[in-house]
Amino acid sequence: MQKSLPVYDSDGSTFAPLVVIELVSETKEEAITWLLNRVRDKQQDGGAELLVEQLTPGAQGTEKDNPNVYVVGASWQRLLYGAEDVGLFKEFKDGSMRGFTYANKHNFKEFQGDGDGFLSMAECQYIIKHGLDNLRAKDEVHVPGYPKMKLYPGKSVIRRMQSKGVLVQVFPLHEKEELKRLSFSWFKKIKLSFQPLDDIRHYFGEGMALYFGFLEYFTLALIPMALIGIPYYLFDWEDYDKFTVFAGFNLVWCTVILELWKRLSASLAYGWGTLSRKKAFEEPRPGFHGVLGVNPVTGRAEPLYSNAKRQLRIYLVSVPFVLLCLYLSLYVMMIYFDMEGWALMIHDEEPTFWTGLLLFIPSIIYAVVIEIMNLIYRYAAEFLTGWENHRLESTFQNHLVLKVLVFNFFNCFASLFYIAFVMQDMVLLRQSLATLLITSQILNQIMEAFLPYWLQRRRNKKAHKRMIKTMEDKELPLSEQVKLEADMSTYLGTFDDYLELFLLFGYVSLFSCVYPLAAVLVVLNNVTEVYSDAFKMCKVFKRPFSEPAANIGVWQLAFEAMSVIAVVTNCALIGMSPQVKSYFPESETQLILWVVGFEHFLLASKFILTFVIPDVPKHIQIKLSRLEFESLEALKKRKMLEASGIPKTAK
Amino acid sequence: MQKSLPVYDSDGSTFAPLVVIELVSETKEEAITWLLNRVRDKQQDGGAELLVEQLTPGAQGTEKDNPNVYVVGASWQRLLYGAEDVGLFKEFKDGSMRGFTYANKHNFKEFQGDGDGFLSMAECQYIIKHGLDNLRAKDEVHVPGYPKMKLYPGKSVIRRMQSKGVLVQVFPLHEKEELKRLSFSWFKKIKLSFQPLDDIRHYFGEGMALYFGFLEYFTLALIPMALIGIPYYLFDWEDYDKFTVFAGFNLVWCTVILELWKRLSASLAYGWGTLSRKKAFEEPRPGFHGVLGVNPVTGRAEPLYSNAKRQLRIYLVSVPFVLLCLYLSLYVMMIYFDMEGWALMIHDEEPTFWTGLLLFIPSIIYAVVIEIMNLIYRYAAEFLTGWENHRLESTFQNHLVLKVLVFNFFNCFASLFYIAFVMQDMVLLRQSLATLLITSQILNQIMEAFLPYWLQRRRNKKAHKRMIKTMEDKELPLSEQVKLEADMSTYLGTFDDYLELFLLFGYVSLFSCVYPLAAVLVVLNNVTEVYSDAFKMCKVFKRPFSEPAANIGVWQLAFEAMSVIAVVTNCALIGMSPQVKSYFPESETQLILWVVGFEHFLLASKFILTFVIPDVPKHIQIKLSRLEFESLEALKKRKMLEASGIPKTAK
Repeated sequence: MQKSLPVYDSDGSTFAPLVVIELVSETKEEAITWLLNRVRDKQQDGGAELLVEQLTPGAQGTEKDNPNVYVVGASWQRLLYGAEDVGLFKEFKDGSMRGFTYANKHNFKEFQGDGDGFLSMAECQYIIKHGLDNLRAKDEVHVPGYPKMKLYPGKSVIRRMQSKGVLVQVFPLHEKEELKRLSFSWFKKIKLSFQPLDDIRHYFGEGMALYFGFLEYFTLALIPMALIGIPYYLFDWEDYDKFTVFAGFNLVWCTVILELWKRLSASLAYGWGTLSRKKAFEEPRPGFHGVLGVNPVTGRAEPLYSNAKRQLRIYLVSVPFVLLCLYLSLYVMMIYFDMEGWALMIHDEEPTFWTGLLLFIPSIIYAVVIEIMNLIYRYAAEFLTGWENHRLESTFQNHLVLKVLVFNFFNCFASLFYIAFVMQDMVLLRQSLATLLITSQILNQIMEAFLPYWLQRRRNKKAHKRMIKTMEDKELPLSEQVKLEADMSTYLGTFDDYLELFLLFGYVSLFSCVYPLAAVLVVLNNVTEVYSDAFKMCKVFKRPFSEPAANIGVWQLAFEAMSVIAVVTNCALIGMSPQVKSYFPESETQLILWVVGFEHFLLASKFILTFVIPDVPKHIQIKLSRLEFESLEALKKRKMLEASGIPKTAK
Repeated sequence: MQKSLPVYDSDGSTFAPLVVIELVSETKEEAITWLLNRVRDKQQDGGAELLVEQLTPGAQGTEKDNPNVYVVGASWQRLLYGAEDVGLFKEFKDGSMRGFTYANKHNFKEFQGDGDGFLSMAECQYIIKHGLDNLRAKDEVHVPGYPKMKLYPGKSVIRRMQSKGVLVQVFPLHEKEELKRLSFSWFKKIKLSFQPLDDIRHYFGEGMALYFGFLEYFTLALIPMALIGIPYYLFDWEDYDKFTVFAGFNLVWCTVILELWKRLSASLAYGWGTLSRKKAFEEPRPGFHGVLGVNPVTGRAEPLYSNAKRQLRIYLVSVPFVLLCLYLSLYVMMIYFDMEGWALMIHDEEPTFWTGLLLFIPSIIYAVVIEIMNLIYRYAAEFLTGWENHRLESTFQNHLVLKVLVFNFFNCFASLFYIAFVMQDMVLLRQSLATLLITSQILNQIMEAFLPYWLQRRRNKKAHKRMIKTMEDKELPLSEQVKLEADMSTYLGTFDDYLELFLLFGYVSLFSCVYPLAAVLVVLNNVTEVYSDAFKMCKVFKRPFSEPAANIGVWQLAFEAMSVIAVVTNCALIGMSPQVKSYFPESETQLILWVVGFEHFLLASKFILTFVIPDVPKHIQIKLSRLEFESLEALKKRKMLEASGIPKTAK
């Protein structure tokens, strides 16, 4: 790994720059010196024991360039110790995945010679980030030179400087050669093939690889549905009765694919060594504030914030706000129906080609408005959740996901539910679904990949006109690379990507029986999504730090909740179909009772299935328990040896 | 602990006898010698390092007495090492619960001086059982003297001898003094008070204490329902419409109490040190047989049995058998309805007092038949599950519980569901419920406590007429105590006790809205149940080995499943009430849709609640994470020290 990177000269020693730290240009000298010393200090003295140097401006350096840009690296040994520290799992000699330990390093499969290439660059960068994040204040009461930037023993220095705005950003560097290879195998070649998930994981980490894995899996899972959908669409377009079979298929499909994904994701995570990796102790998130107190778990000084206050904020502000937004969304929906009625009226009065087109206008406008509302709400939700002042990033994320999901679900699907079950107008349902789906897909692709790309190109053209030219060549000086990457947009995580998949999953699983082409559209969208997402990760955004992940987390739950709703919805649609109604000509009550009974049976089977199908495939379970057994045995042996040294007497 | 027990003389050393091993009287001498040597051998030589002596017959010893009875004890040091081995958790100096280690023993709260009284007798017995169970064959190919009793390296010697019938039983001894104290505080004093759960745990172990804790909790949880039920019963006896409120109460009640129990049980288990105790590696259950192979997890020689064969047995034999039994149960139910109709006909023809009584006869007969069918089925299920040849005791138990639960649920409740939803006859439902409940309670109390007690008394009277007299005195010789206890019935675990509670929970949560006295009856039953169960544990059965348990296991799931069924049933009952029907005078469809919607809302809330309420109370969560954090920190510190010893050079 170290060979492919430009090396950097300083103090007579060289090191591979891995991570960039950017401070604001007017940072006080004493703060900089103090920070750099702390970063360089030995670990037993409370430092991070990393190598750090100021970036020397390149040939094209101008006055305007920020001089306070630093590159961080580490000695090979520090990285290996760090790998043990962060709990990396690597393949052992015998093929099992084990926690890496420095003492045991030669027993790991890919550790050859001095271990060059054993850690991927993403792993090295993760180790450095971990080192920087865990750089804690000792007895400093504030950052030198900044009396207002309070510190207390144990406070993460980097996080405090970042939250106070002195530290602009910390980001990992791209690796030109590898990125080129990855881009080629991922999205540049035309022929259809699976994504290079292992390479993606190697370069971007497990969290990202799992997202792309899920995207691919979801697309593949949709193909049978799309294949069934096409003939349905071609030959039975006007035969609304036939959707019963399709609804039944949907029911089974959405349960089965989620269960299978759990197993697949466990296999992937096992191979990547994140399945049995223990979660590190979670630190308070950067934005968390409170009165300084003592954490009851760690015994460390830490800001504390009363849970009661947080609950008050949640129940007195956030919940009413969400409800208000839901009401607003309902209001907009009603306006849409008014518009719909008005367009229909005009078309009925004098039906021409243009008034025929007019029929689609309300849906398109509504789709655009939905997207805009989702976007605005997204920011509001983020602000509110931040204001709720959650201590952990994970609880913050859970509250954010919950808020956003409830609103987006309501906003996107309320009109469809209304049309399906209150108006019971299957033609309108089909038309609305198609318009919503197509419009939102087009908007998404624009917002997600093309807009940022276009913005970046414009920026680049303005500022680094010459540089773009040199970028084509292989030999770009480090200082230029850093400057280029520092200006790229920051990737904010997989949240929006998963959210989009979640909504698509909703469209398909809830209503695709009345519009069988939905699955086809989603498949097409997903295929382009793979390319545009891959493109944006490689070309548009700064490289993100890799996130170790064993599964898709809260999203698994969200998709499962959606699949439960899908079972209920599809049963209701089946019950409403004329085909089924014809079996109960005399009694509607009988029909409903049968449908409800059937639905309860399905829900019960679904829960039993979820319970019965093991989440981790058998062969991986065996490997995991073998490891556990071995460590238990080793412990026992050690104890027995210790015990045998002590003389025993019968009492 | 050791002081309160009679000590036993042998080889000049004395030890407290804890566990009794009984071999068949005609066991070959060489097998006995070999076994005793293995039990006495040092642990590093593969022995159990326990003290064992033959029981010398007492003054009343007769020719007929089995001479091959051995008492087992252990040195105090062996017990302490064993406590570490089995992973006992004890209260640490700082009040937290930590895994006991020998090296650290003086830092535990109750370890004073040489640690006398630190381990309870039940814990010592558990340690000895663990030692005996883990006594494994080395290179013996069979038990000496028994060429057919095959052994292979790693096979548990005790289990093989037990499954081949040479070893009659292994059981722990009662402790007279403590048992007396426990009995007194538990069931002998008349005044109402909580059960001494800590003492029960101290004497019988955590599994038993959790059962009694659950029984008590369930009884207390029923009291509000009973209190509401009494005035209902007194003033609204004939007003079937009023049950809506009661059904609503049931709905909430059954969800809430189960959630709260989880938290309570976590608190109890934390205090007893079983909450964070890691499960030991599970051995194959004694009855498991197969072709000798290599376990993929442990790498040890072990019988293997193909999973496919087991699945075939389950799906081709067990499932059809269960279905056949369900059909039979249905058939019996139909006979019951015929009898019911016949009794009603007679009563209608000439209504006298006697024909009025006759009306109850079919229900009583049916209740008795149900109990008998349950009993027979129980044996059949046990046989079948054994024949399915499960490798682990836990999977065996799960399959057994599933089989028994499905049948018992069907057998007990099918007639009630039929009356409620097909016949829609609330008067008959009430009458059936009352008869079923009362009859099954009476039968249960007889079968469970009085029958075994009576049998035992009869046995005792025959064989040990004089001994009973001496039993009243304090000074009963050890040999007599052992003989007495060896003849007591063996307690087969909490399965039947939980099953009974499960069915009572079903009666109350499903149908108590139509018969509000059900809760009162169940409360009364539970109060006597506490006494009769306590009595049978202390007086009727052999002392059982203590089972460490952190929760009530699969029963929590069973009760939760029942509470889901209760929500559905109560919603349906509400929908059928004339009171609710009157709100929808013109449309039955509307009514059903509303009820179904309401029910879905309740089910969704229930699942969200289960998900949102943490299973472990906050203060215990904090304690658990503090321990985890400390062990992580200790590990880090150790590594840092190791690392600092190694010279580092920047690469």
